Amino acid sequence: MSRQRRPRIAPTLPLLDIPFRAIRNPRPPYDWLAPDALERIHLASLDILENTGINFLDDEALDIWERAGAKTDRAARRVWPDRGLVLEAIASAPSTFRWRARNPAHDVIIGGDSIAFGPCGGMVYVTDLDRGRRIGTMADYEKLLKLSQSCHALHFAAWEQVTAQDVPVNVRHLHRVRAGLTLTDKVVMEGAHGRIITSDTLAMMRLVYDSLDGDPVTGDVINVNSPLVFDDRMLGGLITYARAGQVTFITPFILAGAMSPVTMAAALAQQNAEVLAGVALTQLVRPGAPVIYGGFTTNIDLRNGSPAFGTPEAAWAALVGGQLARSYNLPYRGSGGLTTSKAGDAQAAYESQWSLWPAVLAHTNLIMHAAGWLEGGLTVSLEKFVIDLENLAMFRHFLDGFAVDDDSLALATIQQVGSGGHHLGTAHTQERFRTAFFPTSLSDRLSYDTWALAGGEDTATRANRVWKEMLAQYERPPLEPAVIEALNEYVARREIELTGASLYE
Amino acid sequence: MSRQRRPRIAPTLPLLDIPFRAIRNPRPPYDWLAPDALERIHLASLDILENTGINFLDDEALDIWERAGAKTDRAARRVWPDRGLVLEAIASAPSTFRWRARNPAHDVIIGGDSIAFGPCGGMVYVTDLDRGRRIGTMADYEKLLKLSQSCHALHFAAWEQVTAQDVPVNVRHLHRVRAGLTLTDKVVMEGAHGRIITSDTLAMMRLVYDSLDGDPVTGDVINVNSPLVFDDRMLGGLITYARAGQVTFITPFILAGAMSPVTMAAALAQQNAEVLAGVALTQLVRPGAPVIYGGFTTNIDLRNGSPAFGTPEAAWAALVGGQLARSYNLPYRGSGGLTTSKAGDAQAAYESQWSLWPAVLAHTNLIMHAAGWLEGGLTVSLEKFVIDLENLAMFRHFLDGFAVDDDSLALATIQQVGSGGHHLGTAHTQERFRTAFFPTSLSDRLSYDTWALAGGEDTATRANRVWKEMLAQYERPPLEPAVIEALNEYVARREIELTGASLYE
Repeated sequence: MSRQRRPRIAPTLPLLDIPFRAIRNPRPPYDWLAPDALERIHLASLDILENTGINFLDDEALDIWERAGAKTDRAARRVWPDRGLVLEAIASAPSTFRWRARNPAHDVIIGGDSIAFGPCGGMVYVTDLDRGRRIGTMADYEKLLKLSQSCHALHFAAWEQVTAQDVPVNVRHLHRVRAGLTLTDKVVMEGAHGRIITSDTLAMMRLVYDSLDGDPVTGDVINVNSPLVFDDRMLGGLITYARAGQVTFITPFILAGAMSPVTMAAALAQQNAEVLAGVALTQLVRPGAPVIYGGFTTNIDLRNGSPAFGTPEAAWAALVGGQLARSYNLPYRGSGGLTTSKAGDAQAAYESQWSLWPAVLAHTNLIMHAAGWLEGGLTVSLEKFVIDLENLAMFRHFLDGFAVDDDSLALATIQQVGSGGHHLGTAHTQERFRTAFFPTSLSDRLSYDTWALAGGEDTATRANRVWKEMLAQYERPPLEPAVIEALNEYVARREIELTGASLYE
Repeated sequence: MSRQRRPRIAPTLPLLDIPFRAIRNPRPPYDWLAPDALERIHLASLDILENTGINFLDDEALDIWERAGAKTDRAARRVWPDRGLVLEAIASAPSTFRWRARNPAHDVIIGGDSIAFGPCGGMVYVTDLDRGRRIGTMADYEKLLKLSQSCHALHFAAWEQVTAQDVPVNVRHLHRVRAGLTLTDKVVMEGAHGRIITSDTLAMMRLVYDSLDGDPVTGDVINVNSPLVFDDRMLGGLITYARAGQVTFITPFILAGAMSPVTMAAALAQQNAEVLAGVALTQLVRPGAPVIYGGFTTNIDLRNGSPAFGTPEAAWAALVGGQLARSYNLPYRGSGGLTTSKAGDAQAAYESQWSLWPAVLAHTNLIMHAAGWLEGGLTVSLEKFVIDLENLAMFRHFLDGFAVDDDSLALATIQQVGSGGHHLGTAHTQERFRTAFFPTSLSDRLSYDTWALAGGEDTATRANRVWKEMLAQYERPPLEPAVIEALNEYVARREIELTGASLYE
């Protein structure tokens, strides 16, 4: 690492002072369903696979199912995998794996009691209080990469927090991956879309990592087109990443009442069928490929058909998804900050909490969309990003728990202060003064008069200052100049090769 | 009931369409501490009572302790109750009781798996988007009573949501109780402050209830002046209510770092000592008197000494408080919507969720301050009131859970729709259309353009319309004219008697 680090600016924001480390949930998972109800959902999902079947809109995927002995209708592109085949296949998936970052200090463990938070992904628009809502650009994406790199409440950095629509679509992935690899040293996700994007991603990863053998270095979500369709783009991505030993998270996007029956039992049975089929396919491609059980089930608003997020129904789905994933010894992926609000307001905050609390309680190992998500996933808000980071940091502190021992019970100090009086000046307090409690970067605890005299700012307005301060303190992580040069050469060559080409045949 | 009910206006707001009923948490409590750590806190609290002691600034309370055989220092007004005495005394407290409303349909069960939500209490200011923040008046209090009566997400109505400062202080309680009894038919709380307010309250209750024997009809919080002081006003209230078989909730107000050591183990041990002493006193006054274990422990902000609410520390305290209460077979009181925010913004929402989720997870039987709380308890916000009600209604729906059976698994419908397509028009969906999901009164799920064209309102602005619509639909619950007349006569007589009098000797 030849690049010299600039001297570290003393952080004034607690969000910038969080050490990178794994966090784990010390309490048992919050199992919502009784075992017999869970078993009924499991059995119903196997019934769906065997009797309704599921479409795979990709010839290679159909070949793989046929070779595995599944009942297949090539013309209809449909497979009816039986329970023996599915359950045997998924058994080879690892229950826990290490996800390698280019900086090994930023590796992430996925599975068990571990929880890893990632930023939002796939947004079309970006918004902030200065410039309002607009189409995302590469400059916006770079800004979001820097924020994600800077705050270790997030374990992941590059996740297409916003689409860079000023870069041509058929070479956009090259710029996205390069930005992720150069502006951050955390794990870089890249869309599992077809065979070209994923192959380019693997090639670029090889320029940065010594080898792609062993623990995975990249991956992304495989969305199911519910009900019961894996499309060609997702299957190209699934097969390419699984074959290379990279990560996929099989995630049906189910709005109950639209993509599934309106009842949550059916929505979850269908989710489970779709996930099991996708996980099984990864293992038929390459036994042992790292794969994550994904849940993204919520409901529509039955008055207007709109998606609804942060609902009680989605909370049930998040909790039960975790139970199902654990029953198959699979890691579990959920979401942390979902909302349909268009502003960084109370609705955005309470709906996000209704996503985050169930996700944490469910022992969700990979919590995507945990920062910045707004407007049903269309927009990333820089202010919402900060509001979410604050809450992720709070969860991290919460999950660390507190000591109960002679020192922390402080009976001598309690006796010394006695009745009345206060503990502000005791030696016991003074010794623990700086680190005793969670330090906020955002919440305002001043008196009304002080707050009002200073302008009566709401949370989003304060968050606007925080992301600017975070950007000001951003430090580019070191990367060998030769590696940067190799990445640049790769991007330049492929830009020429991909001119006028389609990413999907 | 002679007063004729007006024809019911068809509710357009789901918040006005909630039936009054008990809610219960179907899952086990979320126990944060392992049994051995909980036992250490229990033992430390007994050590505090025996070795540090606790002050009771009331002669009658000291008499009661002396008669019970506790070591007492009259001059210092201090008691050192030993563990045998305390644990024997608290054993007579009921683990569950019914709290009678003047309308029996609005009775509340306190204990077991039941959860009851109450509005904020004791606020000095009121704020709304139209008029801003100002000193509370009787008109404001009446408005808040009407909102609390109208929405059955709240189980309680009258709780001095704001102080009526346009009514003289020494007769204010008379007006407050009368307003609660006439504008609502839910349980009426009235401050356990000294012997005069509580005696007047009991007298007024006797005008409305056939008898005060048996299940209680009123009560309120007994705050401990932490560390380790019960003051004269609280003790007058405790003794008067307990003797009359009415409810007290013994609630230390502990800001760790100020009123207790900075470590949460010590804060909880001190909380537990204070609660046990108060509960024991109620049982020495009248064995079997209904009493609730109260927790209100949080931390200060160590940068400026301000109280902090909705923190990870407070979440631990809420969870462990429930464990402690259950270990003594006592009902448990917590808080639902705490925040230091001055506006109905993101901070107000996320801090409130950080209060409400732990409170629900802890099986808190009585969740106070669950609607309207703002600014560290100084202000009630009408918009925050609505934001909180929406979330209480969400929890109610969440706790109801969902069915897993043949009907809800809907395998035939899943097979009928098959791959692709959608479920919007199936018979299974159409039959369940209206009641399938939680109906929001507040969240905006429209597209960005639709929302922006309609003014781009934030949550608080929408909440402003909701409380006005709730007030417009308020119906005064029937009450015998003779009872109203008796209440008016009582208030008029006592206003004369209390002229120039002090409420506390």
